[in-house]
Amino acid sequence: MNIFSGDYLKNLGTDIFCACGAPRDEARIVANELVEANLMGLDSHGVVRYIWYVEEVLNGHIKPGAPVEILKETPTTAVVDCGFNFGPVGANRMVDIACQKAKKCHVSCVVSWRNHHVGRLGAYVQKIAEYGMFAFATATSPKSGHYVSPWGGKEGRLATNPLAYAVPTSGYPVVLDMSTSMISEGQIRILMHEDKPIPAGCVLDADGNPTTDPKAFYGPPRGTILSLGGTMGYKGFGLSLLVEILGSTLVGETISEEYNYMNGLCLIVIDPGAFCGIDRFTELMDQVCEYTTTVSTAPGFDEVVMPGALDFRTREVRKVHGIPLDDHTWELITNAAQKVGVGVKEQCR
Amino acid sequence: MNIFSGDYLKNLGTDIFCACGAPRDEARIVANELVEANLMGLDSHGVVRYIWYVEEVLNGHIKPGAPVEILKETPTTAVVDCGFNFGPVGANRMVDIACQKAKKCHVSCVVSWRNHHVGRLGAYVQKIAEYGMFAFATATSPKSGHYVSPWGGKEGRLATNPLAYAVPTSGYPVVLDMSTSMISEGQIRILMHEDKPIPAGCVLDADGNPTTDPKAFYGPPRGTILSLGGTMGYKGFGLSLLVEILGSTLVGETISEEYNYMNGLCLIVIDPGAFCGIDRFTELMDQVCEYTTTVSTAPGFDEVVMPGALDFRTREVRKVHGIPLDDHTWELITNAAQKVGVGVKEQCR
Repeated sequence: MNIFSGDYLKNLGTDIFCACGAPRDEARIVANELVEANLMGLDSHGVVRYIWYVEEVLNGHIKPGAPVEILKETPTTAVVDCGFNFGPVGANRMVDIACQKAKKCHVSCVVSWRNHHVGRLGAYVQKIAEYGMFAFATATSPKSGHYVSPWGGKEGRLATNPLAYAVPTSGYPVVLDMSTSMISEGQIRILMHEDKPIPAGCVLDADGNPTTDPKAFYGPPRGTILSLGGTMGYKGFGLSLLVEILGSTLVGETISEEYNYMNGLCLIVIDPGAFCGIDRFTELMDQVCEYTTTVSTAPGFDEVVMPGALDFRTREVRKVHGIPLDDHTWELITNAAQKVGVGVKEQCR
Repeated sequence: MNIFSGDYLKNLGTDIFCACGAPRDEARIVANELVEANLMGLDSHGVVRYIWYVEEVLNGHIKPGAPVEILKETPTTAVVDCGFNFGPVGANRMVDIACQKAKKCHVSCVVSWRNHHVGRLGAYVQKIAEYGMFAFATATSPKSGHYVSPWGGKEGRLATNPLAYAVPTSGYPVVLDMSTSMISEGQIRILMHEDKPIPAGCVLDADGNPTTDPKAFYGPPRGTILSLGGTMGYKGFGLSLLVEILGSTLVGETISEEYNYMNGLCLIVIDPGAFCGIDRFTELMDQVCEYTTTVSTAPGFDEVVMPGALDFRTREVRKVHGIPLDDHTWELITNAAQKVGVGVKEQCR
């Protein structure tokens, strides 16, 4: 296990993405976004993606420095052509556009076109909440990621389709960032490598029967992941469709085999100023947090926390103590760096 | 069992609510809304509510004919004071306001103040979808309805907090209308009366331990209902908070013991015309429906359907064959009618 400071990994990422052809400011945006995910404890969306992003640049799927442009807009809406620049570059631009529009018009809805992988979805709604607005976001994946079966089916028709929202408080914002499925494909892969079973109620085999065996999921033929909700899985199915509709259908994206996007992003922003006012809203949000979390805990729980609170706690720890990376991941990152001509210094933290 | 035509029950409801003091057009809105819920098969939100609505008028909680007025607005937003008129009257007015604003500005967000019970939440998003727009809605309940525990807690801090959305297609709209909890209190009550267990994973007893015994839920002391998601219940908890925040906090509502509202409603409307255009959007929605539902079914399922499809199918049947009501419910409805001086003719259908 290696321990790195966030700054070290941010600088390394900036060098890597610059070497990929990105302007320095954009390279820094990408590196910051991924390292922030590590700081928050979401390692699956962190610097491990340096490896994949470099591959995607080399195979031409990511186009560093591509212009991010508004294709179509009204005072409250925009379709943003992200030009297959790095996903975090397009997504951060969308955050700015959505906030500017919501500041002027109180509500806005901004969707992406030709967007790549945006990383941690919660990051974008969090930024908007820190700007004093309410934000809701959805992100879709293309057909190749359709591991999730519709309610009652046994073939994949949806991705794990995350949604997120964030709300200002006087402290850290409340940030929910969740997939609308019971488990992600990445988690199943890890369980298989660790020779562990999948929790019950998360996965079907290719015949549509419940299974806890990762091998029965991968097949071939491959099984499917269930939508959120267990016996109420039609609810998760409906939420997953919501993500698909806002993130892809609304912008005019077809479901095709073509590589036409990686994450279809939709941001909806609401200005509390048009309702009870930001001061009153923040005060009431503090009351909601207090009321919700000051309860007796159920057996097996030490505390009740608001969505996102544990991630902010992890960030406080990792800002001081650094980000742990296993040897294998670190080796792959240094290899990816070398591929684009970036030598990695051996000193850590 | 008695069978009634929708028209008969709508006329009866109109007479009852007129006798309660509502103007005839408003009485008809309320009756239509409740009977439509029966036609769609959602009997818990149907004419059984005639009984409760009459009680609420008699105890002064519902104020028939109270003006529904915009308290605060911008071109994209409104806070609508529903004045404790019948919930469906306020909610239908909110639908009109939200659609008008979205037609002009492409996105709108409308929230309620002093609203009573709105009935079937899906009805309002469905109307907006039929108008050619995307709609998302949330509805909160006051503290007395806080049966649902936050993730990790064993005390009620949230209601079953439903959310809904609807999307136009070339046929019936896609309509999801779901609570963010595993089960409703009403369902538990029915199971207790039928001496049946609660499905596993839905409820905790007062000590915070899982139970399937309705009596262990009711206590006293009372247990709690779990949020949607089973082992992933923190997701349902987050969604439930989203409903609370949009439906109550945004408008400036505190969590209090006071009777200050029944359902806090939030409507968010998006005009596809500002994105890919309504024709393209509808065409793509048809493709999404086709792609999603044409899959092999899992064991125990005959078909895969889009959210809301079964309700529209029930409506087609009940429009022809009528709405069944059990003797006890019908007796309570006739009693409620008599309380406000409406005699109920005995002929059915």
